Amino acid sequence: MATEIKTIGVLTSGGDAPGMNAAIRAVVRTAIMRGYSVKGIRHGYNGLLTGDIIDMNLRSVSEIIHRGGTILYTARCLEFKTLEGQQRAAQACRDNGIDALVVIGGDGSFRGCKDMAAQGIPCVGLPGTIDNDIACSDYTIGYDTAMNTAVEMIDKLRDTTQSHDRCSVVEVMGRNAGYIALNTGIAVGALVTLIPEVPYDLERDVIAKMKATQKTGKQHFIIIIAEGVGHAQDLANEIQSRTGIDSRATVLGHVQRGGSPTLRDRVTASRMGYHAVELLRKGIYNRVVATKAESIVDYDISVALSMYKTIDTTLLDIGSTISI
Amino acid sequence: MATEIKTIGVLTSGGDAPGMNAAIRAVVRTAIMRGYSVKGIRHGYNGLLTGDIIDMNLRSVSEIIHRGGTILYTARCLEFKTLEGQQRAAQACRDNGIDALVVIGGDGSFRGCKDMAAQGIPCVGLPGTIDNDIACSDYTIGYDTAMNTAVEMIDKLRDTTQSHDRCSVVEVMGRNAGYIALNTGIAVGALVTLIPEVPYDLERDVIAKMKATQKTGKQHFIIIIAEGVGHAQDLANEIQSRTGIDSRATVLGHVQRGGSPTLRDRVTASRMGYHAVELLRKGIYNRVVATKAESIVDYDISVALSMYKTIDTTLLDIGSTISI
Amino acid sequence: MATEIKTIGVLTSGGDAPGMNAAIRAVVRTAIMRGYSVKGIRHGYNGLLTGDIIDMNLRSVSEIIHRGGTILYTARCLEFKTLEGQQRAAQACRDNGIDALVVIGGDGSFRGCKDMAAQGIPCVGLPGTIDNDIACSDYTIGYDTAMNTAVEMIDKLRDTTQSHDRCSVVEVMGRNAGYIALNTGIAVGALVTLIPEVPYDLERDVIAKMKATQKTGKQHFIIIIAEGVGHAQDLANEIQSRTGIDSRATVLGHVQRGGSPTLRDRVTASRMGYHAVELLRKGIYNRVVATKAESIVDYDISVALSMYKTIDTTLLDIGSTISI
Amino acid sequence: MATEIKTIGVLTSGGDAPGMNAAIRAVVRTAIMRGYSVKGIRHGYNGLLTGDIIDMNLRSVSEIIHRGGTILYTARCLEFKTLEGQQRAAQACRDNGIDALVVIGGDGSFRGCKDMAAQGIPCVGLPGTIDNDIACSDYTIGYDTAMNTAVEMIDKLRDTTQSHDRCSVVEVMGRNAGYIALNTGIAVGALVTLIPEVPYDLERDVIAKMKATQKTGKQHFIIIIAEGVGHAQDLANEIQSRTGIDSRATVLGHVQRGGSPTLRDRVTASRMGYHAVELLRKGIYNRVVATKAESIVDYDISVALSMYKTIDTTLLDIGSTISI
Repeated sequence: MATEIKTIGVLTSGGDAPGMNAAIRAVVRTAIMRGYSVKGIRHGYNGLLTGDIIDMNLRSVSEIIHRGGTILYTARCLEFKTLEGQQRAAQACRDNGIDALVVIGGDGSFRGCKDMAAQGIPCVGLPGTIDNDIACSDYTIGYDTAMNTAVEMIDKLRDTTQSHDRCSVVEVMGRNAGYIALNTGIAVGALVTLIPEVPYDLERDVIAKMKATQKTGKQHFIIIIAEGVGHAQDLANEIQSRTGIDSRATVLGHVQRGGSPTLRDRVTASRMGYHAVELLRKGIYNRVVATKAESIVDYDISVALSMYKTIDTTLLDIGSTISI
Repeated sequence: MATEIKTIGVLTSGGDAPGMNAAIRAVVRTAIMRGYSVKGIRHGYNGLLTGDIIDMNLRSVSEIIHRGGTILYTARCLEFKTLEGQQRAAQACRDNGIDALVVIGGDGSFRGCKDMAAQGIPCVGLPGTIDNDIACSDYTIGYDTAMNTAVEMIDKLRDTTQSHDRCSVVEVMGRNAGYIALNTGIAVGALVTLIPEVPYDLERDVIAKMKATQKTGKQHFIIIIAEGVGHAQDLANEIQSRTGIDSRATVLGHVQRGGSPTLRDRVTASRMGYHAVELLRKGIYNRVVATKAESIVDYDISVALSMYKTIDTTLLDIGSTISI
Repeated sequence: MATEIKTIGVLTSGGDAPGMNAAIRAVVRTAIMRGYSVKGIRHGYNGLLTGDIIDMNLRSVSEIIHRGGTILYTARCLEFKTLEGQQRAAQACRDNGIDALVVIGGDGSFRGCKDMAAQGIPCVGLPGTIDNDIACSDYTIGYDTAMNTAVEMIDKLRDTTQSHDRCSVVEVMGRNAGYIALNTGIAVGALVTLIPEVPYDLERDVIAKMKATQKTGKQHFIIIIAEGVGHAQDLANEIQSRTGIDSRATVLGHVQRGGSPTLRDRVTASRMGYHAVELLRKGIYNRVVATKAESIVDYDISVALSMYKTIDTTLLDIGSTISI
Repeated sequence: MATEIKTIGVLTSGGDAPGMNAAIRAVVRTAIMRGYSVKGIRHGYNGLLTGDIIDMNLRSVSEIIHRGGTILYTARCLEFKTLEGQQRAAQACRDNGIDALVVIGGDGSFRGCKDMAAQGIPCVGLPGTIDNDIACSDYTIGYDTAMNTAVEMIDKLRDTTQSHDRCSVVEVMGRNAGYIALNTGIAVGALVTLIPEVPYDLERDVIAKMKATQKTGKQHFIIIIAEGVGHAQDLANEIQSRTGIDSRATVLGHVQRGGSPTLRDRVTASRMGYHAVELLRKGIYNRVVATKAESIVDYDISVALSMYKTIDTTLLDIGSTISI
């Protein structure tokens, strides 16, 4: 690892997230302005194995800061999970003159970073996932956009829910984490928000609350269910059978993964991409960049992967007080 | 029906549609400016049976032109389908001094108009449904908004579809009609659009086209399926098994029913609401208001209900030429 | 003009409009699918004089249907207004093997078409301008998007106007035509809409109406002024001095020219681009494509340029009835 | 101040900001759920002097979390700046049984809180302003929405700027502070961002940078100027005369103040409104609620008003590295 870095490779891996393009742009431009060459590796780690590698210049990343998705494409890569795959990927770096890697993705992608580091390729990881399920970082690239997209969709759903005196059960993304659900629930004024981190009792936490609220004059309801909790349709059926209120399920789905990133995602991604190159420039390798209380910080990859974060359930308390 | 009209009642019925509020606003204000009193009947025809009737003035409809849903609420009404229900509803009109009704809704609502007319209550119907499935009118209130909402959602989906080289199968609304699907398909550049009016052969119309397009360098695909054709998930499964391309289904769902109406829906609804009151003022009763080539026209309710319109499939030809 | 057409050139000219990319895409793909080659001419007619001409294939127009602006860039071209410039442009077509031109733009661009036709280059024009000021066509590419953008911005302005009991005077685009203003005024519920086609008296049409409306309980006002009428700031000052109501001017400006096109603009642009190539294929040259009552039609260029259309002021009557 | 609090009054003051309604909702509902009565004071402190005071219940704040503006209206109040005005306002509180006030607004509003506290009315202030110019708080209600609105508008402007190879000079709000400009500049990839906190040299910081960037192939430019720096039109004229590049000014204006609040503004406002009532419940008076590194904290009003915050100019450095 004593080699001087001349060329930096950048790739996106795992599920795509809005703001990944802003991060790529910041990495490419900061690197070039600091005197490095940059290569883009397409379709995640796969691109190393298949040779899908392109030269990038200042203009390669023009007019992308406002675009969802990733111009480098992304993929999961089974072969890369084997030692042989990792060795081939490292060799591909050396063959293409790539001295260091910046990888934008989630925990799986960071484990890939660790594997590449073990093969002698310096790496820096940036947290890019809508799910916000990266323990070392308060905030991940794409999370703010996904939540705002969910909020906009549910605001539309509210119109028809209210016009028909219905209950809408809305399933939002987040894999095993309730971050998107918890904040979206507050933002749309959901009567109840169910997240995987907190067990619930249907009768006490949902049905009784609906009935109590009906007495105050409210006749339509929005219930948010995180994808990690269960199926919206099952919950809607259960609610309808117990309350008699016409209940409909909506699964917001992959629409939440796309769209033009919000200001927050663009700014955070830009700061993180800049920080990643600055780390490499200072000879600080094998780190994950993160936010901590609005500052940009970084952790050793192994440390980052061993960290654990808990969801702040005071938001649930606030929600249950003001949603009625 | 020789009675002079002094008070006009207005209600929304059936599924809600963006722009219904703009129509209500136009009816209320035109009527008041022309010297009529106006009463709002809530929850569709139900409101007549339950007495859910409110006085409306110029300010009752302030700040609603840009809102989705309907401030008068809507519902389906089983009791109203019986002769006895219709008689009770007509009596409720007389008891509340309502001399004529403006009803905003779909074909079912217009059949209700016809029934009320048979009971001696002059009626005018306005076409309000996102599905555009009203034969006498080129265009219905809510249709433009629903399509633009679908397009915005699919544009987001496109980002993630492209980043992953996937096929997205997207189910849009429209009940038994393909209007939303057909236009949305053109607007998002869908490779294939399947509508209930035109039978399809999966191998020839979908699979072969995907393979031909792949040869031109395209690796991601958007397929639109109208709700009247079948389930998006089934189609996605079938495509994946025949092509090996990672295929995902998205059901856009009730989000398409809500949201702030587009300019076109607001303007059309305003023109139609104005026209409805002008008809009553001229003593022309029992009509359905419609658009014909951007003009506002009207038809006898019975004639309107007996009309039939066919979907313009030249759009399919254009789509199949330019989507590749 | 008896030469067989093998290669079609396409360019955008004049002010840009959302949907121009959808039109380019339809021209390119229809042409290629029909067996023609296609060249893109960049920066309007200038590109012919400077040789800024690119080959286009099916994939050159991928992922552009949803993008504002024009991938071919646009410009005004002084030199092209001289006979010598026109001769040089026609020669450039012949030198580059361009046998016919499709030009997307406004009246100025169509006069360019006529000049090229006079030099022996078959042309077809497509109406692309947000202003809707093309006489032969009910509707121009970009018009619907510009109006919806204006409506969205004014809906935001409404919040602050209402919170402060103010009068907002909003200047919308449209050059010498009032189309955007008239429809936007209806759609946002503007108390008054001023357009260049209809003279107004400030005291009678604005001030008196504001005072009458205040008596009904309304305390905030939106006034729309078309760019062709005068300056928003002057009107706001005048209103404030005559009524004492805090009045603010907003000029929506060039934001109205951009953004992702609406469904209507995408579909119309696609239909028109397809139609243009079909005309050339049938040997029908020197036409302007247009919409007439939702159908796609075409006119001889000279006829199109000599046509005249009047604005439908019944919308003003409707607006003055329902905006109070 | 030993009196037990039974009734809490809530008002919004100064310029409106998106998210104020979410804050009002949280204050009202938390208070009622904790056993207090709530009164809404309309049009800021004016409402105390004019008696524009309404009773509020759980349903008074239904369906407002997603709405811009403030349902309580806002105003500046000259009379309240006099001691006599303050005494009358405090007496109005006592006459209406209002035992404590929650005030949502900016620094001017907090000075009003301090004055009311001096008259014996316990107060809590919440930071509501799009400008983010409240020293004690990292973040103010409305700031995130205003920036995202600016970004969306500039994204549209980008289309036309690019299509014409122009320079767009965009003036964003922020009064004497550069927060909106700085972050918006990063988010839209502005070549240069001018803020009042950092002096600039036109030739070195703008013109030279434009020329250097042109050499990399870029032909269109976005320059952000904070309202506190000067006029966009003057800067555009200067740029055009020095570079020859067609330059246009756009003033985004009051549109930035309105619109449906973002998730972040809704969640922060909800948390702050909840916190304000919890403070009163604990007998902690005369505080300003604030965010500090994503936590909700509070400060003594006098301390809050004496604080000073500096803008983080590392964002300028990042911007100048990656915007080219």
